[in-house]
Amino acid sequence: VKIQVVADVLKANDAIARRNRERFDELGVLAVNLISSPGSGKTSLLERTSEALKGRFRLASMVGDLETTRDAERIDRAGIASIQINTGKGCHLDAAQVEAAIDKLPLTESDLLFIENVGNLVCPTGFDLGEHAKVTLLSTPEGEDKVLKYPLAFQIAQCILLNKIDLVDVLGYDRTVFYDDLRKVNSAAPVIEISCRRGDGMDLWADWLDRMREDLAEQKH
Amino acid sequence: VKIQVVADVLKANDAIARRNRERFDELGVLAVNLISSPGSGKTSLLERTSEALKGRFRLASMVGDLETTRDAERIDRAGIASIQINTGKGCHLDAAQVEAAIDKLPLTESDLLFIENVGNLVCPTGFDLGEHAKVTLLSTPEGEDKVLKYPLAFQIAQCILLNKIDLVDVLGYDRTVFYDDLRKVNSAAPVIEISCRRGDGMDLWADWLDRMREDLAEQKH
Repeated sequence: VKIQVVADVLKANDAIARRNRERFDELGVLAVNLISSPGSGKTSLLERTSEALKGRFRLASMVGDLETTRDAERIDRAGIASIQINTGKGCHLDAAQVEAAIDKLPLTESDLLFIENVGNLVCPTGFDLGEHAKVTLLSTPEGEDKVLKYPLAFQIAQCILLNKIDLVDVLGYDRTVFYDDLRKVNSAAPVIEISCRRGDGMDLWADWLDRMREDLAEQKH
Repeated sequence: VKIQVVADVLKANDAIARRNRERFDELGVLAVNLISSPGSGKTSLLERTSEALKGRFRLASMVGDLETTRDAERIDRAGIASIQINTGKGCHLDAAQVEAAIDKLPLTESDLLFIENVGNLVCPTGFDLGEHAKVTLLSTPEGEDKVLKYPLAFQIAQCILLNKIDLVDVLGYDRTVFYDDLRKVNSAAPVIEISCRRGDGMDLWADWLDRMREDLAEQKH
């Protein structure tokens, strides 16, 4: 019974995710699903991204958290139209929550939608939200060994961000372990080293988003 | 149907957890369930704890991870009898997994069992494993704001460890936010500031484990 129920839940989710993707396509909005552990820097990334893309793209975001509206408030202050989705005990966002939030954001006037998932490197990997791309964020203090311990989070990503690169020396972080492991699970996705504190890598990240936007526009025509 | 299935799963889990707790009581082993985000330092904590308790207590551990046996190997090298539980896509340990592992460890010759849960600040909070105490670990790079965003993880803990305290200055970490938020969800549990890298706080942590062991011994008589 349990397996059947889980299969039904995933099937229902996928149907809604397809509808969401169609909506995003119609709206011409690139939707990016941001996945990481708690505290890897998803919200700081959006703050920095807002600066980096100022005048180029109009941004919107949905922010998943068990409780509080702190992140949406931070992102709103950074000039990104935001809505908070509180999941209570829910460990990930699902397509229905995203669908319910779509009409609450000014997406007709947006180019890019960031969906900041609940801080969790496991459960969000199993749920399509209708995004065009998944981006997985890892921060250096989490350690070199996370790729093979949470392989799915890195396998499903179209782009991987290594954040808090400013702490590499302080931590004695060994990037070779990270890159060697990553090659085993995902050799296609680009890796961008960033520091949301210092601003490193924001130009490369903006370029990647740019290319994704172009790909989406080409698909449309 | 979905809610009923979830309720049944939790009921079955609780029944096994009760059996586990009885086994631990018979064995005179204090069982501690360690909960944190990926990369907060659970494995490093066990390495340090092994040093701090050398000659006082005999230690054993169960280590939950989606994949790899790296953590169990590290802990084993630190002199703690260890078994790795690979959960595949499973986002938390459950009581049945713990039960199946009990007989694979030399618990008749152990005083303390650490159950290192899957790195996840959400899902492990809902599953009793039969432990005597839950300990939640937060590391400073994860930010000051995690308590209210993941309240259950802090509410259910009998002891809270703030790790990577050696990075407070580098990060500009504001402890007052952490402590103010914590008071709102759990004012009873002691907080111990530690650095698994430098060794800070290991004496206080050892004392806390000592007291828990004494409480367990008293309950028995």
